[in-house]
Amino acid sequence: MSVTDELLANNATYAASFSGPLPLPPAKGVAVLACMDARLNVYGALGLAEGEAHVIRNAGGVVTEDEIRSLAISQRLLGTREIILIHHTDCGMLTFTDQDFRDSIQEDTGVRPTWSAEAFGDLEGDVRQSVARIKASPFVPHTDQVRGFVFDVATGKLNEVS
Amino acid sequence: MSVTDELLANNATYAASFSGPLPLPPAKGVAVLACMDARLNVYGALGLAEGEAHVIRNAGGVVTEDEIRSLAISQRLLGTREIILIHHTDCGMLTFTDQDFRDSIQEDTGVRPTWSAEAFGDLEGDVRQSVARIKASPFVPHTDQVRGFVFDVATGKLNEVS
Repeated sequence: MSVTDELLANNATYAASFSGPLPLPPAKGVAVLACMDARLNVYGALGLAEGEAHVIRNAGGVVTEDEIRSLAISQRLLGTREIILIHHTDCGMLTFTDQDFRDSIQEDTGVRPTWSAEAFGDLEGDVRQSVARIKASPFVPHTDQVRGFVFDVATGKLNEVS
Repeated sequence: MSVTDELLANNATYAASFSGPLPLPPAKGVAVLACMDARLNVYGALGLAEGEAHVIRNAGGVVTEDEIRSLAISQRLLGTREIILIHHTDCGMLTFTDQDFRDSIQEDTGVRPTWSAEAFGDLEGDVRQSVARIKASPFVPHTDQVRGFVFDVATGKLNEVS
């Protein structure tokens, strides 16, 4: 049995006690943008229930064109107003460089990605510049409530980056 | 008190019973790519625990350059081998067109995005083409276990798209 099949069996249990449907717009008017890291359970760490918040995730919790697309749709079409940005300790993005990652892909496939891997060396510094990327975008209309945090994978705590 | 402050209070409760740290590579070797929709609780719907799976999310659960970046990092650096792609019923992406969304941004800001909103009219059709985008990428090495699903926001069930 594949892992996917195992998780589908879990889904049957989840659906058995599911009550829906809920409304489409997030009830708490918030969008969370976080790293894809397996140890960061966004619903758990923020005490979210189904229907409350948009959750956007990628390698690093970084802000590229696609996160601006998601945030623009979240705010312009579905009414969210606050943004919570989350990086975390012990992040894989701290362990390599863009150059090395793209070199290794080119060596293996013969094709060099046109995109940056968005690796970073300074965790809090990258939270700050990610918040700055959001605030610099003309496509995200509400940026007075954008706050950045580092999730500690040892303690489960969110620490704000000022 | 902002919603963000309210969720930070929830985080204190979460951290009080948190046990960590767990290893960086996802224990189940799987990456989930899903829509950001508030009603789709990926950890809940798949019965995932902290440390088990990468979770990548965006508006629509679509596959753009940034999702390829995340999947490439997930597989090449952190050892995942299976991909679960999830769209869902009642998706906001079914309610508008790229043209209208970009027109409205241009009207409001004077700037037209260079990116597509990735809206779609056919839910299952977009799951299929999203799987095809992953399989077409030279940067995602393991694509024999990529399966696509539609999450039903009324029942909580995942239905596979074949």
